[in-house]
Amino acid sequence: MNIKKILKELTLEEKASLLSGADFWHTKAVERLAIPQIMVSDGPHGLRKNAEGSANPNEAIKAVCFPTACALACSFDRNLLTMMGKALGEECQAEKVSVILGPGCNIKRSPLCGRNFEYFSEDPYLAGEMAAAHIKGVQSKGVGTSLKHFAANNQENRRLTINERIDERTLREIYLAPFEIAVKQADPWTIMCSYNRINGYHSSQNKWLLTDVLRNDWGYSGLVMSDWGAVDDRVAGVKAGLDLEMPASFGKNDKLIVDAVNRGELSMEAVDKCTERVLRLTDKAEESRTPAKWDMEAHHELAAKIEAQCAVLLKNDDDILPLDRNEKICFIGEFAAKPRYQGGGSSHINSFKAVSALEAVKDYCKVEYAQGYITEEDRTVPELLEQAVDCAKYNDKVVIFAGLPESFESEGYDRTHMRMPDCQIELINEIYKVNKNIIVVLHNGSPVELPFIGNIKALLEMYLGGQGVGKATCELLFGDAAPCGRLAESWCMKLEDTPSYLNFPGVGDEVSYSEGVFVGYRYYDKKKMEVRFPFGFGLSYTKFEYSDLVISENEINEDQTLTVSCTVTNVGSRTGSEVVQLYVGDKESSVMRPVKELKGFEKITLKAGESRKVVFNLDKRAFAYYETAINDWFVEYGEFEIMVGASSRDIRLTGSVYVNGTAKLPVHFTFNSTVGDVLSCSEGKEVFGELIDKFCKGMTDMNGDGLGSNSMELALAMLKDTPMRGILCYDERPEINRVWLQEMLDRLNAMLEG
Amino acid sequence: MNIKKILKELTLEEKASLLSGADFWHTKAVERLAIPQIMVSDGPHGLRKNAEGSANPNEAIKAVCFPTACALACSFDRNLLTMMGKALGEECQAEKVSVILGPGCNIKRSPLCGRNFEYFSEDPYLAGEMAAAHIKGVQSKGVGTSLKHFAANNQENRRLTINERIDERTLREIYLAPFEIAVKQADPWTIMCSYNRINGYHSSQNKWLLTDVLRNDWGYSGLVMSDWGAVDDRVAGVKAGLDLEMPASFGKNDKLIVDAVNRGELSMEAVDKCTERVLRLTDKAEESRTPAKWDMEAHHELAAKIEAQCAVLLKNDDDILPLDRNEKICFIGEFAAKPRYQGGGSSHINSFKAVSALEAVKDYCKVEYAQGYITEEDRTVPELLEQAVDCAKYNDKVVIFAGLPESFESEGYDRTHMRMPDCQIELINEIYKVNKNIIVVLHNGSPVELPFIGNIKALLEMYLGGQGVGKATCELLFGDAAPCGRLAESWCMKLEDTPSYLNFPGVGDEVSYSEGVFVGYRYYDKKKMEVRFPFGFGLSYTKFEYSDLVISENEINEDQTLTVSCTVTNVGSRTGSEVVQLYVGDKESSVMRPVKELKGFEKITLKAGESRKVVFNLDKRAFAYYETAINDWFVEYGEFEIMVGASSRDIRLTGSVYVNGTAKLPVHFTFNSTVGDVLSCSEGKEVFGELIDKFCKGMTDMNGDGLGSNSMELALAMLKDTPMRGILCYDERPEINRVWLQEMLDRLNAMLEG
Repeated sequence: MNIKKILKELTLEEKASLLSGADFWHTKAVERLAIPQIMVSDGPHGLRKNAEGSANPNEAIKAVCFPTACALACSFDRNLLTMMGKALGEECQAEKVSVILGPGCNIKRSPLCGRNFEYFSEDPYLAGEMAAAHIKGVQSKGVGTSLKHFAANNQENRRLTINERIDERTLREIYLAPFEIAVKQADPWTIMCSYNRINGYHSSQNKWLLTDVLRNDWGYSGLVMSDWGAVDDRVAGVKAGLDLEMPASFGKNDKLIVDAVNRGELSMEAVDKCTERVLRLTDKAEESRTPAKWDMEAHHELAAKIEAQCAVLLKNDDDILPLDRNEKICFIGEFAAKPRYQGGGSSHINSFKAVSALEAVKDYCKVEYAQGYITEEDRTVPELLEQAVDCAKYNDKVVIFAGLPESFESEGYDRTHMRMPDCQIELINEIYKVNKNIIVVLHNGSPVELPFIGNIKALLEMYLGGQGVGKATCELLFGDAAPCGRLAESWCMKLEDTPSYLNFPGVGDEVSYSEGVFVGYRYYDKKKMEVRFPFGFGLSYTKFEYSDLVISENEINEDQTLTVSCTVTNVGSRTGSEVVQLYVGDKESSVMRPVKELKGFEKITLKAGESRKVVFNLDKRAFAYYETAINDWFVEYGEFEIMVGASSRDIRLTGSVYVNGTAKLPVHFTFNSTVGDVLSCSEGKEVFGELIDKFCKGMTDMNGDGLGSNSMELALAMLKDTPMRGILCYDERPEINRVWLQEMLDRLNAMLEG
Repeated sequence: MNIKKILKELTLEEKASLLSGADFWHTKAVERLAIPQIMVSDGPHGLRKNAEGSANPNEAIKAVCFPTACALACSFDRNLLTMMGKALGEECQAEKVSVILGPGCNIKRSPLCGRNFEYFSEDPYLAGEMAAAHIKGVQSKGVGTSLKHFAANNQENRRLTINERIDERTLREIYLAPFEIAVKQADPWTIMCSYNRINGYHSSQNKWLLTDVLRNDWGYSGLVMSDWGAVDDRVAGVKAGLDLEMPASFGKNDKLIVDAVNRGELSMEAVDKCTERVLRLTDKAEESRTPAKWDMEAHHELAAKIEAQCAVLLKNDDDILPLDRNEKICFIGEFAAKPRYQGGGSSHINSFKAVSALEAVKDYCKVEYAQGYITEEDRTVPELLEQAVDCAKYNDKVVIFAGLPESFESEGYDRTHMRMPDCQIELINEIYKVNKNIIVVLHNGSPVELPFIGNIKALLEMYLGGQGVGKATCELLFGDAAPCGRLAESWCMKLEDTPSYLNFPGVGDEVSYSEGVFVGYRYYDKKKMEVRFPFGFGLSYTKFEYSDLVISENEINEDQTLTVSCTVTNVGSRTGSEVVQLYVGDKESSVMRPVKELKGFEKITLKAGESRKVVFNLDKRAFAYYETAINDWFVEYGEFEIMVGASSRDIRLTGSVYVNGTAKLPVHFTFNSTVGDVLSCSEGKEVFGELIDKFCKGMTDMNGDGLGSNSMELALAMLKDTPMRGILCYDERPEINRVWLQEMLDRLNAMLEG
């Protein structure tokens, strides 16, 4: 496609028409110039392609449901995500879908967000790495992705109108960072803007977000489309850099674009930029099209295999797991027969089949089964409870399948509590009375409170594990697979502990991200709070030891790369996988910073007795915070702690490095600059030193008596915070006045700039 | 004084001269018109009058140091504060001081604030009531007060330049509320503006604060003076309503005022207003002058008597207290001989004497004494420790005097931790090894962490108790006085638990009050956190029972007064005093509100077996929150819980009342109003009902499959949050466009307004 040429030939009306969808799932064609339509479909953990000829835009073809993002992230396994991405890419090629929407890399600000199951993590680095790996997989097959929802779509409540007040440092370090990582590493063909407003601006018309940050700062050159229905003011959107509106606006917004150009309120240049990006995407999609087939059964097996790498073993007292197939085992709970393996909303896959644990266990041994509860009814059914308790009595071990019903979490609304259905809790507690060997298998998209944790011996968290979840569960329960997932989010003790508790989901259309950068473990660590399970935590059927931490330098400049390595040894008797996690903490900082932040992770598989060296490379960003005074990442000189461990609260090796930043923060002194600040630079001392010295002595004399026995020390401490204007109030001489002070300050500022 | 006449006769230069101090402690005179000087002096828990003829403005005459505000507030006793205020008023009359600066009613946002000992509470109601009682006492003697520091002076760190970002609801409900209460109840002659900035404006030139809120909303007609050195831009200050600059600006700022008037940048009216208030104050002071004498010894006794009503008994296992004078008792710790009874800075009193517990105990029995530690040195002195342990070995009971050295807390700087000196902790723990009968007496201005709490049987908190603290301590220890103080602030488990921990003292000159209204117990309750000792807590030597809660109505309108009563009975065997506390909580609210808020308290003294009925009256403010949409206090219709108890976490009686608000929040619908909001009013249903109904059904059809088994329910939930503009995107008809929608919305808004 000769895009430059086509651009010249397109009329304004045609250009405008290209800037919104033809229908729910297609871009528009311009037949006159042989510009074809392309098709996009929902994802991201499966293909949700609109059934051809269906009047219902949400009626999807049969497909394979892979594990959802909340599960996938627990793998901490980039290769695994890429592998799944490739499978999705193949499916899209076979189904002639050009772009599969997703992945979503929004931060889990609160465990209540209804869409958390579609997101990876509370940690921006992990979320970004997972998203990048996913995108690389899909796009390696010549199919596009749409990284979403850009940005800060962290709640469902009033998601289309909510205005989020977030300071820029928090945005850059937490909410934008995963997008930045994925954009820079994996260059997604498209990005989908979010519904919400940030600091007053709808993402669909936020120029700062879509152009200044995304394109200018990060160098993104792909296409930005709207989330479905996210467009507020289309003309403002074109100006801001929103290329494609989805779905169709029935030509209404196209007309507004044309009118605005004709009225001189919108430049043709802006329209051309968006049009060109739509054409480029179309061209790329067409060029990448290759004939392909896909094997549903093979992908079903892959889904199960992936899930086995994602599940997190959270408790395993007395090594009750793995199970022995010769034991008398029962499965209790409706989820054993009908697993919940995905969430509601746009990501909902029309699975061609789903294997339950009850079905999968047939390959292992006979188990008794009792339904225990009715998933969608939060009330105890006495007969079901009784049957279950009876069943538990006569078995060695009881595996209870529990979790959240579909109605508890979905796109479209947030949870209001973190409780499981009472009937399930009662079931577990009643069974505990007759059998202490309880293993709980959880199906849920987000953490829940665990009032029964003391009554169970093992807890296996499957999250929403895709249609192969039953098989994966049995492999893990019986030790055919080794549990190797690690939590991608903190599990708090109770809802009130969550960082955003006092500000979620906001009041009316306003929400304040008051906790700032202290999201997830950054909050629990800083506030020294107990958590149920920490970020990065997960058990294995074996044990790992860490040794030989080597940090390549004692001191580096910010433009140098630091290499950190250590050795991990499987000291148990089984093969297992470990997620080696590297955290960095600034020992002293002039801004409030987290105690530690994840800056590297590697997943390794080791046979019993095997050792391996793991190597991490850290660059400037591992040490920097976002400094709004320079609109850039900034490394403050000092010592940084390097922590390597098995979870955010199981640090095994620590060391440190000094890092030199090269940037200087701008200084400009005013009447209200403090004496301490002025004297902290040599120029300030030169201009004001003598005067302040005199003033200081006067202060001390005056306050001597009132300040008790430490008068000199305290007077100095007080003086430090006195504004420069204070000199005028305490110096009798008329020539020491505002005009004089301004001149002196001007002189000082000139010295600093010069 | 004929003020109107004088105002006409004063020249501009004379007027301007009256708007700043003559020196540190006097206003200016205008001899030509017989306008005299008046003198102000620091307070507020004693008279800190500049010694006549002294060149050092902080050299004070001998006086009596009463308990500081942190102690006083624990009395929860309005009469006690008024009694102290009267004594101060007498002193001022005798010493010809016209205004005694203080009290300070700033909120204890963080326990770290260096000046907390000068403030009353974390609770605005308690702080306001205490301040009002203090002011009434002083002013009943014809002496003025200066309520300070207006407003939100909650930290010492960079206190002159710090900019606090605080939302208005938080300001009104928490930080301004104590001032409002004191202004309305007690009408202080003057108010002192604070050093800090609020939302960008120095208090000394914040028109919203000094005029809109203080004068227009609250009806204050007295004088506003600056804190010493708080003036930034004097001309802006005059415009904002800052009447008097203190101390002298050596005529520099007077000249700026004159120049500004002459240049037409400042109106003569504004200057006249300020001048008139200065004249009125001068006149009032002169008119109120009465000959008086004061008896230092009598006031010393009063100081001890007051402190005995303030101290808080925090622990008393095995009823180890009161002590029996026949037991073998030792006093350990330098504070026993040299008590710390006040803080550093402007409130520091030149006490004419101070009685230590070691001196006072001579009236009771012989005690052994060991110094134990050197107060100002945070290091263990082995010989002192050894002596103390030896001493403890051979006594029945050990009273350890501990707390914070002077250098740990003062005006001028904030603490950076909540620890006591390590040497004192070591002392307590070492003594515990030889004697389990440990009573700790604390001297400190703010809560401390108590790592030794498990090793002691009793804890008596004296705060900074004034020069009679030694006598009060012995009276309480030996049961001559009954402990009856209750904590005016929560004691957290550790510093990291505090609500402002992530935002105190801010970064550079910026601090965000991100915790909003959730200060003190409002935070710990909402977050369901464990505390060391809750707000309102304190033990007695007797027990009280609560009964017969009577709430006068089931339902009231907001303009009605609700009467709540209950009966309290002393069921122990000694006379004692109880602080009966009433809290109110909104059971359901559209904004985040505290679980409970103190809205009434009464202190009563009951003999053993005696009962008394306690009555509270609650008005609108007991139920309202501050609603910025109407710039007023707003009662949302619903059920409010009435809780009466012995502390914020020891609620003995609960009931409820429905309250009808009369105000309506304004409604104005836009493109981004949600469907749910529009349909929540009958007018919205009338205009949009039919259309939305149709649209809703369409949505449900489209999403049916994707939403799983609860499609209808979920679609409805999703639709609720859809903005009105969404109609345009989902309706094909070209006439359903932005112009049409705006017309419909205009119609609806007109109906709502009309």
